[in-house]
Amino acid sequence: MRRYSLSEKMPIKALEAALNDVISIKLKDQRIFRGRLTRCDVYMNLTLSDAEEIEEDQVRAKYGQLLLRGNNILWIQIPE
Amino acid sequence: MRRYSLSEKMPIKALEAALNDVISIKLKDQRIFRGRLTRCDVYMNLTLSDAEEIEEDQVRAKYGQLLLRGNNILWIQIPE
Amino acid sequence: MRRYSLSEKMPIKALEAALNDVISIKLKDQRIFRGRLTRCDVYMNLTLSDAEEIEEDQVRAKYGQLLLRGNNILWIQIPE
Amino acid sequence: MRRYSLSEKMPIKALEAALNDVISIKLKDQRIFRGRLTRCDVYMNLTLSDAEEIEEDQVRAKYGQLLLRGNNILWIQIPE
Amino acid sequence: MRRYSLSEKMPIKALEAALNDVISIKLKDQRIFRGRLTRCDVYMNLTLSDAEEIEEDQVRAKYGQLLLRGNNILWIQIPE
Amino acid sequence: MRRYSLSEKMPIKALEAALNDVISIKLKDQRIFRGRLTRCDVYMNLTLSDAEEIEEDQVRAKYGQLLLRGNNILWIQIPE
Amino acid sequence: MRRYSLSEKMPIKALEAALNDVISIKLKDQRIFRGRLTRCDVYMNLTLSDAEEIEEDQVRAKYGQLLLRGNNILWIQIPE
Repeated sequence: MRRYSLSEKMPIKALEAALNDVISIKLKDQRIFRGRLTRCDVYMNLTLSDAEEIEEDQVRAKYGQLLLRGNNILWIQIPE
Repeated sequence: MRRYSLSEKMPIKALEAALNDVISIKLKDQRIFRGRLTRCDVYMNLTLSDAEEIEEDQVRAKYGQLLLRGNNILWIQIPE
Repeated sequence: MRRYSLSEKMPIKALEAALNDVISIKLKDQRIFRGRLTRCDVYMNLTLSDAEEIEEDQVRAKYGQLLLRGNNILWIQIPE
Repeated sequence: MRRYSLSEKMPIKALEAALNDVISIKLKDQRIFRGRLTRCDVYMNLTLSDAEEIEEDQVRAKYGQLLLRGNNILWIQIPE
Repeated sequence: MRRYSLSEKMPIKALEAALNDVISIKLKDQRIFRGRLTRCDVYMNLTLSDAEEIEEDQVRAKYGQLLLRGNNILWIQIPE
Repeated sequence: MRRYSLSEKMPIKALEAALNDVISIKLKDQRIFRGRLTRCDVYMNLTLSDAEEIEEDQVRAKYGQLLLRGNNILWIQIPE
Repeated sequence: MRRYSLSEKMPIKALEAALNDVISIKLKDQRIFRGRLTRCDVYMNLTLSDAEEIEEDQVRAKYGQLLLRGNNILWIQIPE
């Protein structure tokens, strides 16, 4: 097994590694958003480009650039 | 790809870059507001001028100048 | 465009500038209050004089002096 | 207009000035309490003597001495 | 009027003064507990001995020793 | 009465004293868990071994080792 | 009984010890997720690989890599 430095094993590093990738985010109000991750910080605040709101796998709305507040995020799906 | 400094990649910078632009904000109580961004801080507290409350793409109320508390914000739609 | 100092552009400054003006406040429990702003701090804690609770544009109750806790505030309408 | 020092204009000072006065408090669970303010701190934690719970302007329950947690307070009505 | 030191006027002091007394506590989930106060700290975390859950003035359950988290407390009834 | 040091009177000490004892915990979502306390910290984060979920005094589910987040705990029943 | 150092007895150590193991997590919105723990930090933020959402012991959805925010976690089931 290759060795990781401590910081590489931080969960937030998985988000940073996804910059420029398409991710999905579920908020506390149960809405799901999908878009290309363009910015993120340690509070999980993040911006998406080409952001869409998804409902039952359908696009419900398109927002362009969207800033999401980390403290309302339940989970983030990140490509492996 | 052009290089960014660390601070440029912070999500809050996307908000600061939108000063004087028209943005839309969704609060935790599911209300949506639209207006011209006149002030913001790192907590995502912000002021709008010509603020309107939007419901199903219709203007539901007009408020003039409105101060919104960052900790109640779900997302902010920012022009690209 | 005239230049602002950093602190002038803080959202809380818009509230401080409204001292002695009549403002409206919406709380998280969806109640709306209106009154003359007599005190405020950086947490958006504030006091109103001649405070009224408003429901569908009607005065529902009168409170005299009212202290509102900042952490329950959704938005504040401030005269421009 | 007489001049105030900065600390005099803090909202919490309006509460401190009401020590020994009868105040009313609304909590986040929509219950209203009334009593004589005997202690308070900067977090708006406070104690009342002769505390009563009020419902539609009627006394619903009497509690004697009551300690209320500041973080659950929506508003405090303070005599002018 | 006798003079108090600053710390004596802190609301938490009213709780500390009730050590070994029977107090009642209402939590955010609207449950009421009664018991003898055996420990407390500045966050209003506390332990009760002979703790009972009360519903409409009836004992609904008995718990022996109970540790309650301060951040979920709405109010504490303290003997005068 | 024997004398206590300050730290012995902290509510969290009652939890630490219960290490290896069977305790019951109620969470904010009204679920009750029972198990042997194997670890705890000052935030009331804790681990149980042989953890069970209890509903109306019946075992509803068995979990083995369970880590509970302190900030969601309403109360902890501790053997005296 | 073997002796533990203080840090070994911290609840978060039980999570760290489960790195590369399959764990289950319940969030505040009552959803349950299962997957292989690949990263965690002291706030209980964590990443899962091969993450699945579970409903009544059935797989309801598959997510690949999922980042979960610690502050929304109710409990984590950890293999003993």
